[in-house]
Amino acid sequence: MSTTLITNITSLVTNDPERGDGPLGLVEDAAVVLEGDRIAWVGQAKDAPEADHLHDAEHRSAIPGFVDSHSHLVFGGDRTQEFNARMSGRSYSAGGIRTTVAATRAASDEALEANLLRYLREAARQGTTTFETKSGYGLTVEDEARALRIASRHTDEVTYLGAHIVSPDYADDPAGYVDLVTGAMLDACAPHARWVDVFCEKGAFDGDQARAILTAGAAKGLLPRVHANQLSYGPGVQLAVELDAASADHCTHLTDADVDALAQGHTVATLLPGAEFSTRAEWPDARRILDAGATVALSTDCNPGSSFTSSMPFCIALAVRDMGMTPDEAIWAATAGGAQALRRTDVGRVVPGARADLALLDAPSHVHLAYRPGVPLVREVWQKGVLLG
Amino acid sequence: MSTTLITNITSLVTNDPERGDGPLGLVEDAAVVLEGDRIAWVGQAKDAPEADHLHDAEHRSAIPGFVDSHSHLVFGGDRTQEFNARMSGRSYSAGGIRTTVAATRAASDEALEANLLRYLREAARQGTTTFETKSGYGLTVEDEARALRIASRHTDEVTYLGAHIVSPDYADDPAGYVDLVTGAMLDACAPHARWVDVFCEKGAFDGDQARAILTAGAAKGLLPRVHANQLSYGPGVQLAVELDAASADHCTHLTDADVDALAQGHTVATLLPGAEFSTRAEWPDARRILDAGATVALSTDCNPGSSFTSSMPFCIALAVRDMGMTPDEAIWAATAGGAQALRRTDVGRVVPGARADLALLDAPSHVHLAYRPGVPLVREVWQKGVLLG
Ligand SMILES: [Zn+2]
Ligand SMILES: [Zn+2]
Repeated sequence: MSTTLITNITSLVTNDPERGDGPLGLVEDAAVVLEGDRIAWVGQAKDAPEADHLHDAEHRSAIPGFVDSHSHLVFGGDRTQEFNARMSGRSYSAGGIRTTVAATRAASDEALEANLLRYLREAARQGTTTFETKSGYGLTVEDEARALRIASRHTDEVTYLGAHIVSPDYADDPAGYVDLVTGAMLDACAPHARWVDVFCEKGAFDGDQARAILTAGAAKGLLPRVHANQLSYGPGVQLAVELDAASADHCTHLTDADVDALAQGHTVATLLPGAEFSTRAEWPDARRILDAGATVALSTDCNPGSSFTSSMPFCIALAVRDMGMTPDEAIWAATAGGAQALRRTDVGRVVPGARADLALLDAPSHVHLAYRPGVPLVREVWQKGVLLG
Repeated sequence: MSTTLITNITSLVTNDPERGDGPLGLVEDAAVVLEGDRIAWVGQAKDAPEADHLHDAEHRSAIPGFVDSHSHLVFGGDRTQEFNARMSGRSYSAGGIRTTVAATRAASDEALEANLLRYLREAARQGTTTFETKSGYGLTVEDEARALRIASRHTDEVTYLGAHIVSPDYADDPAGYVDLVTGAMLDACAPHARWVDVFCEKGAFDGDQARAILTAGAAKGLLPRVHANQLSYGPGVQLAVELDAASADHCTHLTDADVDALAQGHTVATLLPGAEFSTRAEWPDARRILDAGATVALSTDCNPGSSFTSSMPFCIALAVRDMGMTPDEAIWAATAGGAQALRRTDVGRVVPGARADLALLDAPSHVHLAYRPGVPLVREVWQKGVLLG
């Protein structure tokens, strides 16, 4: 396998405290050697070994590729008018998520896949090299399985979210829908997914339903993660910790007991500031969660209804301004934190053996991702050892 | 002169209500013909005339290039650590703006120009085709004149801001500094600038000093604009209207009398949400100003201390979320509004005779600039008829 030396990196975030300064393991005047799709060597440029190819980072800084552990990108249709009306103070008979469900069901496989690819490429241009995505806009056995089949062609991190909302087809029989989600739909979906997720919230699925769905998924080999405590207080976070879910996502409304549970358990609190930005909602309090000793990840929640951003840098800037995170904590949460929320050790860090995923920034340090909000600083992205064009 | 037909534009913002729908003059399935550095024709693609060259917009939407009417880009030095400490809750003996003044004075002409060019190019990649920039980090006769000479090589919209703060050299003699700003410094600077500006604020320059500075500038042929009412209530806005300044910038703290003055006069209220974002300050109330009948522009205030963003799309997203603007109003304010704040009629609109400045978006409409915060949607930028590479 051929090797590539990327040198002249002004400042490199490794996320390995053994390897450099502070929790981010910062290395100045750094270099990285890639071998195939893996990182073979990391250190100071002056100590770098020879390699087959030489790539000059031109004094850019570098970070691990972002790990976006929460998105909803298998969808059809367009909700621009709904957004525009909401933000213009005009009434609009919006179907909300049901609009997307209807459009997703009506879309061809090709249209869904083309749309997914569009957003995955857009995210990759912004430095995201690992992304999770979910079903949840099909809500029939066939449409959920189809969404997962399409997603699994493009990422390993695929989540079965038949329990996004109660299907409109079961409006009068929510228990029957839970039976479907834990029965025939699960059977059809489990082969195409790694994760099972549920929207545990008033008006969606309560604690008992969520437990039944996650437990049924686990029995089919799916690992649990939970949409928890987004719109109101509820049982989601504590259920996630109890079931050792990889992540409890949103965590906007937390009691002290919820925070304690996160601190005691191994479940990551994944915060999704794009959702609060786009819905003008209260911010999650990352500071409180971190100070309790729990682990925080940041993710986009990219979806056409409540958070149509694919920008991890944007989420970092919001987390620093509005959620009490330091720039270092936010960069960690968007890389190593996302990896932990996906129980991955091969991404989110720049260390020998890890996947060769790097984002090079038009900036002297990672801090600029918060210092320069909105500016597209990601100039070059390496994914699995390949420079994206 | 050769002509270029840009066709297959899904949705075009012209800002000419005579030409299309609504205040933005939206044209669907549009085309534009450029001739040299000017727009020669605008209309529906099916009616387009022939041209020497054909450029396919591939169903992107298009808007006039952004007009960023307020930035501070002639500076030296780096304040990353100050930002990082502030956002990390650590104390830091920051010199604030004085740090930048010292570094700017110490920098070579070449370093200042290279830095300026870096940010102008970065802004251009994000769709900004007209930008204003200011002096204000030199604060000596030589350093202010130098900043303006450098800026004037790269933009027509150059502002003399010797009255940014009282120079540290005159800490004990602010009246002496005003004499300098209205005397020898003005004489040296006036040939290189179009505008004169003053930071009218407690701790900087009061109403009487601001009036003296703007009046002296006007006597030398400079047109007035004012940093007004950013940090506190004050006389800036009403002074700006009284002197028929093109713009009162910031407008965060306004009395009813200030709003009335803006509504009665011809001074644009230029709002700079990047500053409130980066300093965690109260948002200006764009809705109140618009509802009173005044004109609003949006701009970045790009500077290393209080708003280090060059992203007009970011400012649009903030204005819609936090300042009560509709997406349409925000896009108008960032294009035609900026033009009006610079008293320009040749930019900010896509009409025959206007400058051939266009931004093509990876999105079906301009609304996505607010709907998709943080996502770099500007894919292609035409400036003075040239496609930027
Ligand atoms: Zn979600
Ligand atoms: Zn300013």
